[in-house]
Order: sequence, then C-alpha cells, then structure tokens
Amino acid sequence: MVYVKRIVLDVLKPHQPNALEFSQTIASVGADYRVHLIVLEVDENTETIQIEVTGNTIDFEAVQSVINDLGGSLHSIDEVEVQSEPDSD
Amino acid sequence: MVYVKRIVLDVLKPHQPNALEFSQTIASVGADYRVHLIVLEVDENTETIQIEVTGNTIDFEAVQSVINDLGGSLHSIDEVEVQSEPDSD
Amino acid sequence: MVYVKRIVLDVLKPHQPNALEFSQTIASVGADYRVHLIVLEVDENTETIQIEVTGNTIDFEAVQSVINDLGGSLHSIDEVEVQSEPDSD
Amino acid sequence: MVYVKRIVLDVLKPHQPNALEFSQTIASVGADYRVHLIVLEVDENTETIQIEVTGNTIDFEAVQSVINDLGGSLHSIDEVEVQSEPDSD
Amino acid sequence: MVYVKRIVLDVLKPHQPNALEFSQTIASVGADYRVHLIVLEVDENTETIQIEVTGNTIDFEAVQSVINDLGGSLHSIDEVEVQSEPDSD
Amino acid sequence: MVYVKRIVLDVLKPHQPNALEFSQTIASVGADYRVHLIVLEVDENTETIQIEVTGNTIDFEAVQSVINDLGGSLHSIDEVEVQSEPDSD
Amino acid sequence: MVYVKRIVLDVLKPHQPNALEFSQTIASVGADYRVHLIVLEVDENTETIQIEVTGNTIDFEAVQSVINDLGGSLHSIDEVEVQSEPDSD
Repeated sequence: MVYVKRIVLDVLKPHQPNALEFSQTIASVGADYRVHLIVLEVDENTETIQIEVTGNTIDFEAVQSVINDLGGSLHSIDEVEVQSEPDSD
Repeated sequence: MVYVKRIVLDVLKPHQPNALEFSQTIASVGADYRVHLIVLEVDENTETIQIEVTGNTIDFEAVQSVINDLGGSLHSIDEVEVQSEPDSD
Repeated sequence: MVYVKRIVLDVLKPHQPNALEFSQTIASVGADYRVHLIVLEVDENTETIQIEVTGNTIDFEAVQSVINDLGGSLHSIDEVEVQSEPDSD
Repeated sequence: MVYVKRIVLDVLKPHQPNALEFSQTIASVGADYRVHLIVLEVDENTETIQIEVTGNTIDFEAVQSVINDLGGSLHSIDEVEVQSEPDSD
Repeated sequence: MVYVKRIVLDVLKPHQPNALEFSQTIASVGADYRVHLIVLEVDENTETIQIEVTGNTIDFEAVQSVINDLGGSLHSIDEVEVQSEPDSD
Repeated sequence: MVYVKRIVLDVLKPHQPNALEFSQTIASVGADYRVHLIVLEVDENTETIQIEVTGNTIDFEAVQSVINDLGGSLHSIDEVEVQSEPDSD
Repeated sequence: MVYVKRIVLDVLKPHQPNALEFSQTIASVGADYRVHLIVLEVDENTETIQIEVTGNTIDFEAVQSVINDLGGSLHSIDEVEVQSEPDSD
C-alpha cells in the first residue's frame, strides 16, 4: 500500500482564523500529524501560507476538506512524498 | 490533542524593557519555554524583534498577553509548529 | 548485477491526475519505492514536475510506463544512481 | 526560574585592552562562560566587536559592568536565549 | 599500493544509450561500483554528462574503455581521489 | 581560570619561511596546538595569511613572539574563543 | 613533534601525465596518503590543478619533489594544517 508521508501545500487564507488556529485545526485531523505553517505574504484581506504536513499516513482529502472549512483555498500542491509499504492488514 | 511546539513571532517593542528582560518575562510564562530573541531593526523609539518560543505545550494566549503587558505589539505570527498527540489524560 | 537505486526525472503532466495521485501511482509500482515529487512550474494546461524515485531495485521501464499511462511525458532523465552488487541468485 | 544561556552583544571598544584580554576578562565573570569574540570593524581609535557569551546561568549585569570597566560601550543586545527551568533551590 | 576511490568525469554522449543504460553499463565494470550520473546539458544530438564513479579499487582504463564502447567521449577528468594503502598481497 | 581555546590571526609575512614552515614553527610552541594556515593574498614581497590556532591552553604571547621571530607582523586578532574553567591547581 | 596533516597546493601541470596518474604518483609517496585532485582550469598545453594531500605525517619535500618529477610546478601553498603531538620515539 502507498502511504502519504509529507505534503507541502500553498494556501490562501483570510486573516481569521489566524495561523495558529489554522495549523491546530489541520493537525487535529490525524493522530500524529505535525504541521509546520509559514506565512509567506500578507495582503489586506488574505495571507498566503505554506503548510507542510508530516505524518505516517496522511489523509489528503481530510486535510483539504478542513482547509476549505476554515475559509482557505488550496492553490497548489508543491511537494509530495509517498512511500510504498507492505500492507499492514 | 494538538500541542503548540514552536512559534515565531514578529513584534514591535519600545526600547525598555530591553531584549533581555523581554525574553526572560516571556520564558517565565511556561515551565520549559526556551526563548530565542533576535533584534531585527532598531528605530528611534522602537525595535522590531523576532521571538521564537519553543516548548512542549506553548500557551499562545499567555505569551501574547505578556507581550502586550510589556508594551509590545504582535505584528504577525510568522511560523507555527503544532503536533497532534494522543491525549495525556 | 547492477541495481537502480535512484532516478530523478523531469516530467510534463496534465493538471489531472494531481501531484498526489501521480506520485502514489508511481510508488505503487514497487514494494519499497519512495517518491518525492516537486512541482516546478504550473502552466495553463500542464505542469512540469520533478520526480525522484528511491528504492532498492527500481524498475525504470515500469516507472516510465506508468508515467505514460497517467498522461505524463518523460522529458529527460536528470540523474541516475546505480550500484553494482553481487548477484542475489 | 529563567536562566540566560546565551547573549550576543554589539560593543564598541578602544584598541586597548586588545580582543584577547577583553574576552578573557568577560569570561572570568562566570565559572563556565565561553566567550567568542569577533572583530567586525577596525577604526582609528576604536573597534566594533561582537561578543557571544554562552553559559548555564549568565549574569548579564555583571557582563555589562565588566564591559564598561574595560572602556567598552554596549551598543546593542543582538540576540538572547533564555530557558525556563524548575528552580534548583 | 595506490587505489582509485572516486573519479568524476566530464563526458559527451549521444542520446542513445540513455543515461540509465549508460550508468548501468559503467557500474557493471566493477563488483562494487556506484555510479552517479548527472545530465548537465542536452543538445540536439548529444548530451554532456557528469559521471561520478565510487568504489574501492576503480579500474579507470576499464571505465574509459566502456565509455568509448557506448559512443561516449571522455572530455576531461574533473576530480580524482586516490588512497595509498598497504598492499593486500 | 580562563583558557584560550582558539585564536584567529591576520598576519603579514615575507615569502620565506614558507607557509608550511611558518605553521610548523607556530605549532611547536605548544604541546597540542593545531595550526590551520590559509594564504589569503600573495603580493610581490609579502603574503597575507590567516592563522587559526586551536589548543587547550594557548599561550598567545608565545605565539605572537614566534610570529615576530619569523619576520611576520600581526595585523589583527580577528577572533578569540576563551573558556572559564575551574582552576586545575 | 609537529606533524603535517593536510596541505592544499596549487599546481600547474602539462596534460600528460593525466590527473589520475598525477594523483596516484603523489599518493605513492606515503603509506597512508589520500590525494584529492581537482582540475580547476584547462589551457592549451597545461592545466591548473588543486591537490589536497591528507595523511598522518605528510613529507612535504617528498611531495614537492614528485610534483617536479612529473613536470608540474608548485605555484603556491594554499592551506596547511599541522599538529603538535608528543614525540612517538
């Protein structure tokens, strides 16, 4: 099976919720997610952020869904790391 | 539960209290906080500083409240690292 | 015998399937492949990506065949690492 | 309690005492201080130096007082690292 | 005795055989060669590649001979690492 | 007691004695000195060199005296590292 | 005693013997020399090379003598590392 280990996303978000709440909500999607958020650019109503999520089995769709719920919009997937591993079943 | 492990803040502060007292007061908020303060720019009445707080469970609101008490103003959250971990309760 | 341990490929792909699905499908070719995909440039209908595949015995033809099946086109092989090892037979 | 672990200071000093004696005198303030002095700029009567003091419990006021005794003048505190630790009493 | 441990070669090659086959054939010269090939420049009929061969006792003449057999031409030896060791006889 | 652990010196020297003899003579001042000499600039009659001396208890005055004996002239002390340690007496 | 541990030399050599033979002959001077040769510039009849020799007790005069025997000319000593050690006699 192929597991997603790391994704780097380019996201546009409103100022609220702030960077802290944004990253906390994304991390809460998984049991072991580490989220590293960097604010790249701040505009009047929005900010462009880079979000790096690291984990053992990242659920990309759940991450994307949370980003939308928070008012963010996924601009692009910048990096992906996946690993093929024997199925744990 | 999601814990805040590291935050990087951009802050404007008056010259007094100085960088040393400023970082000491922020560190005193938590039992294991490490504070790394860098002076980025010095102006006539103020200085722009970058504050990096590292710890196991950073209380962002308490940090922010202390910055205000010291006469500082939080300009932006530049980086956040959070980690989802099984609840220790 | 000579084993392929790492290849770095320059590939042009349509926007769909996205970078995540693209890298997952390539990783599924082998039992231990790690795929690191970086999006280098995004154009109207296509994106240029760099794909680095790492593994113990990479099957280059199978990787290339999957890239074609996904609508991608291999522009160039940018790096190769191979290792001569005693035959395991 | 909050301990000062590292400070980086920007100091203007006369040519005498020289960089070696200057750093030795600062180090002698504490039982385990390591002092790394870099000469940044040499002018006719003065030199601008960067002093990094590392230790387990740096006494900033004692360091500052020695700098003054040596004829130096503290221009700015450039970096501070402090650590909150359980009180050793 | 002096053993060759690493050589970095600048080579001009036709497009076929491709970079993968080229590096595999060079690696097959020795029992433990690792070959790292980087494509530096692609022209209409040729490509300039850098080949780094690492091994315990590299046979440079055999490597050079294989490069010629593959239609490549050795432009220059860019780096060499050799090690004097007691003779194993 | 405060020990000198590392000094970086900027020195002007005549071409003879050469860089090798120069560094050997400086190293011979101490029982465990390591001397790293880099030639920075070569002029008609002189060369500017950077000398880094590392050791457990460097005797700066002895180093300076040897530099003078060799016809060199100490232009500046560029870096100093000193360490305060409990007295070994 | 003071031992030479590393020297970096700037040498002009004819194209023949080539970089490989050149470094092999230098390494053969000592029982444990490692020679790292980098070709810096290639001209019509000569090439400028950097030779780094690493060993426990490098005999500089023997190295220099071999360079001359090979038709090379030592332009400059760029770096020297020496170490003072208790005499092994």
